[in-house]
Amino acid sequence: MQTDDLLKQIEFIKEIDKLKYIQRRTKLFNSDRNENDAEHSWHLAMMAIILSKHSNVEIDVLKVVKMVLIHDIVEIDAGDTFIYDTTKNHTNTDEELLAAKRIFGLLPDEQGDELIAVWEEFEAGETAEAKFAKTMDRLEPLLQNASNNGGTWKEFDVDYQKVYDKKKVMQYGSTPIWNYAENLINESVEKGILKKENS
Amino acid sequence: MQTDDLLKQIEFIKEIDKLKYIQRRTKLFNSDRNENDAEHSWHLAMMAIILSKHSNVEIDVLKVVKMVLIHDIVEIDAGDTFIYDTTKNHTNTDEELLAAKRIFGLLPDEQGDELIAVWEEFEAGETAEAKFAKTMDRLEPLLQNASNNGGTWKEFDVDYQKVYDKKKVMQYGSTPIWNYAENLINESVEKGILKKENS
Repeated sequence: MQTDDLLKQIEFIKEIDKLKYIQRRTKLFNSDRNENDAEHSWHLAMMAIILSKHSNVEIDVLKVVKMVLIHDIVEIDAGDTFIYDTTKNHTNTDEELLAAKRIFGLLPDEQGDELIAVWEEFEAGETAEAKFAKTMDRLEPLLQNASNNGGTWKEFDVDYQKVYDKKKVMQYGSTPIWNYAENLINESVEKGILKKENS
Repeated sequence: MQTDDLLKQIEFIKEIDKLKYIQRRTKLFNSDRNENDAEHSWHLAMMAIILSKHSNVEIDVLKVVKMVLIHDIVEIDAGDTFIYDTTKNHTNTDEELLAAKRIFGLLPDEQGDELIAVWEEFEAGETAEAKFAKTMDRLEPLLQNASNNGGTWKEFDVDYQKVYDKKKVMQYGSTPIWNYAENLINESVEKGILKKENS
């Protein structure tokens, strides 16, 4: 039984290697090289560990780390959805749910079900852990764009209001991190790397 | 005070982005694309979470995850050391310790000291968590080489005994995972993708 479980887990470990090929729109810091989902997930996990004390409420850090490590795995089948793409639904699409079932379904049943539940909890964004995980997921590309002279904001013609509307959920995870982010967004407008209004 | 801490943490978060540029010798699964340290660290964290139940003794999974997420960060300054390079010392070099102090030293003191301690614990390999983390670090490239028709074993003329000697520490982390690994090594010899003896 334990050996059967291990063989299933090894198949899952091999399958998720594909996350390293999923390119995001955002670029690495001070760089023109696109980030991939595996690198992004590693960075969010580091951020969750480093920043957990700034959470508005006490959180289960291991749960948050699990969330950010797995949050993009469905993109192996469903592809990356750009946050400022207005033509696509960003919540739990049928395609993503199918992907979750296929990929986490490679694991022993109980473990696969647990990870699907963790992923759904992240997507729903209602628990303290999901709120903090989403704060990490919003913070990294903000830091990247600010370091890249506007990055995807400029590239895809995104204005202040759109950025603000996407980022403001950070306040539910961490007040001090949101204060920092809000300042950085305002500074970006002042510097001219994020335009105030779309022309 | 809290804001000061956050600014230091943000500087650290930006600095460790450089891990995404550190190339390993091993390639992704069924691929000729080199893996970088951030991707590798993400994969080990996933493996630690998925495989933790196979540990020989109960472990603090969050501690193991921290270890594997940070274990290569010193390579930002010190570079990647290839495991089969016999000309270089593989334990805690002075260069790596300097790197740890510089990079983790960007963090608030207490947090930086904690992460240096976690890294040193991993390097020493004596606690249950460090043994399991090292088991993950040995398993991933083994799976990769087996999937890549011998991978770095062939490329760098590494024979069975050298592989066996590097991998056998896995038994201290997990008996079932080591049994699986030992089988995979033997199968690799049978398949002719790992040579029995160096000519």
